Amino acid sequence: MKDRTFSSFSAVNALLADLPGPDQAALAQAQAREPQLTKPAGSLGRLEEIAHHLAAWQGHYPARLDKVRAQIYAGNHGVAALGVSAFPAAVTEQMVLNFQHGGAAINQLCRTYDIELAVTALELDHPTADFTQGPAMSEAECLAAMNIGADAAKPGTDLLVLGEMGIGNTTPAAALCLALFGGEAAAWTGRGTGIDDQHLVLKTQVVARAVAANRGTDPLQRLAGLGGRELAAIAGAVLAARLRRIPVLLDGYVCTAAAAVLHAANPQALEHCLVGHSSVEPGHRRLLSALGKRPLLDLEMRLGEGSGAALAVGLARGALACHNGMATFAQAGVSGKD
Amino acid sequence: MKDRTFSSFSAVNALLADLPGPDQAALAQAQAREPQLTKPAGSLGRLEEIAHHLAAWQGHYPARLDKVRAQIYAGNHGVAALGVSAFPAAVTEQMVLNFQHGGAAINQLCRTYDIELAVTALELDHPTADFTQGPAMSEAECLAAMNIGADAAKPGTDLLVLGEMGIGNTTPAAALCLALFGGEAAAWTGRGTGIDDQHLVLKTQVVARAVAANRGTDPLQRLAGLGGRELAAIAGAVLAARLRRIPVLLDGYVCTAAAAVLHAANPQALEHCLVGHSSVEPGHRRLLSALGKRPLLDLEMRLGEGSGAALAVGLARGALACHNGMATFAQAGVSGKD
Repeated sequence: MKDRTFSSFSAVNALLADLPGPDQAALAQAQAREPQLTKPAGSLGRLEEIAHHLAAWQGHYPARLDKVRAQIYAGNHGVAALGVSAFPAAVTEQMVLNFQHGGAAINQLCRTYDIELAVTALELDHPTADFTQGPAMSEAECLAAMNIGADAAKPGTDLLVLGEMGIGNTTPAAALCLALFGGEAAAWTGRGTGIDDQHLVLKTQVVARAVAANRGTDPLQRLAGLGGRELAAIAGAVLAARLRRIPVLLDGYVCTAAAAVLHAANPQALEHCLVGHSSVEPGHRRLLSALGKRPLLDLEMRLGEGSGAALAVGLARGALACHNGMATFAQAGVSGKD
Repeated sequence: MKDRTFSSFSAVNALLADLPGPDQAALAQAQAREPQLTKPAGSLGRLEEIAHHLAAWQGHYPARLDKVRAQIYAGNHGVAALGVSAFPAAVTEQMVLNFQHGGAAINQLCRTYDIELAVTALELDHPTADFTQGPAMSEAECLAAMNIGADAAKPGTDLLVLGEMGIGNTTPAAALCLALFGGEAAAWTGRGTGIDDQHLVLKTQVVARAVAANRGTDPLQRLAGLGGRELAAIAGAVLAARLRRIPVLLDGYVCTAAAAVLHAANPQALEHCLVGHSSVEPGHRRLLSALGKRPLLDLEMRLGEGSGAALAVGLARGALACHNGMATFAQAGVSGKD
């Protein structure tokens, strides 16, 4: 994988400028089988879309979901000290231990949907810098996290679920979205784990100050300036998955904001990604609209950890089972449309 | 079960007038555990609602999903001869064979989500009468189908998924909705398996004529006049499940229209039911709104067979795994809100 290592922002931008597309042959095979299956045309709706997506981006037909992998990154944020979260920063590390001991929501969901879970803590003892005073990370720090992310895109993975944990990290998500898509800081800033009105005002001000303190136009510089290590790792994982023909399931606001950095560099960069769910966090819906992405689920969740994406793996398993396993009209002796 | 047999419409109405409520003790236990789990309060959104629903309506705590059963009913309709469907009526029986041989979408979904599938064909050689000329079924025919439905609510079932197959059966669904909720026939009539504009006009006229030909105010008489055997069986199954403390997952338009008959008799009659998905069929969303029900999924499906409800079993498994399996803040040593 050495040739894929992210050695500099300019090298990453070169990769982003020349991305592989979907496998048209695999997609054509999926599209050819679909109308033969014993159901009215189009009646499985978005399940058909999921099945075709997997074939097109795995690059083989039939698609498979033998090895589904969830990768959760945890990071700490200098900005957490400003009071933007309802929980103390120590919870990031405590939750990593909870993941390791199998006690978190994502552990239960991965067990339910047969997903292999990996959790990577990213220098929790060294939070990123307070980005209201300058960049959160240097280019080297950002690249290091991106390269850790690239390791998640292991060859042989049929579907990669990405998620995060990091007290305070809806603040970098909001700041990134404001920087990449513009608008008002308030439109991108939400209550995260559950802050009150007063802290929401403070958080919104922090988001606006962060963007003012981190100018620049290169999306990767935006990521270094306004992101966090777990966001950079997710961006690296999404890009590496694209290069290695692994479809991706994105989770909520923080995860999607990290991926949006790639979209800002190349609007086709997220075509291999499905979005598992729409979060309650109001910026997420706005962000999905800006990316032209439709979430699969809308269950009023706002947990992170990859939980919404893991739930969508359950849907993907059903979708692929239908596409690959259903009888055709000819096989079943069922009459077609009058 | 003899005391629960549906012997007459008046006996069914007596049952409907005195329905058991949720188990408040089991619900209280679920509600007491929820804020102890290692996540921000409310952050699992509707997954929390599903877990609480299962406890409240199974009547024990913790809830379980060891035995999930899907029951599909198939019926034929005199009205199919009027050209309201894109498929010939012979497809109903052909699809029953497809279910029995494991080739349909519902077979793949039941395999994926560990659901036991049963398919019951209801006198396919004897379609119901053309309800534009009078009632589709007599009271005795309707009760016979309802009693077959009652058999689906087998003791020991943790969750009952209901679905249907019957060429032409979105027409009785639309007619029932028009009779029960009023409005314009066009607002309740959709394209079903995929009819063209001309046939949609015809189908809408058939729906209006059916309601004009079947007056009456008792919801069960409406069911006999405008329903079909598979709809009556679903109504019977939903009611029997309520009496036997089995929560129910409803599917799309036809399934929900059948259940709506019970709601018309007692607005609390569907409190033990979750709705798996919102169908593309436009009447379904309108019907769910009239029932005060929010679907769990919205994936642009319109297949029937219980397929949308079966997918929602996948969500329910994740929801219950989280509720029952997550560590508490105390167990995991995770700090609470600041």
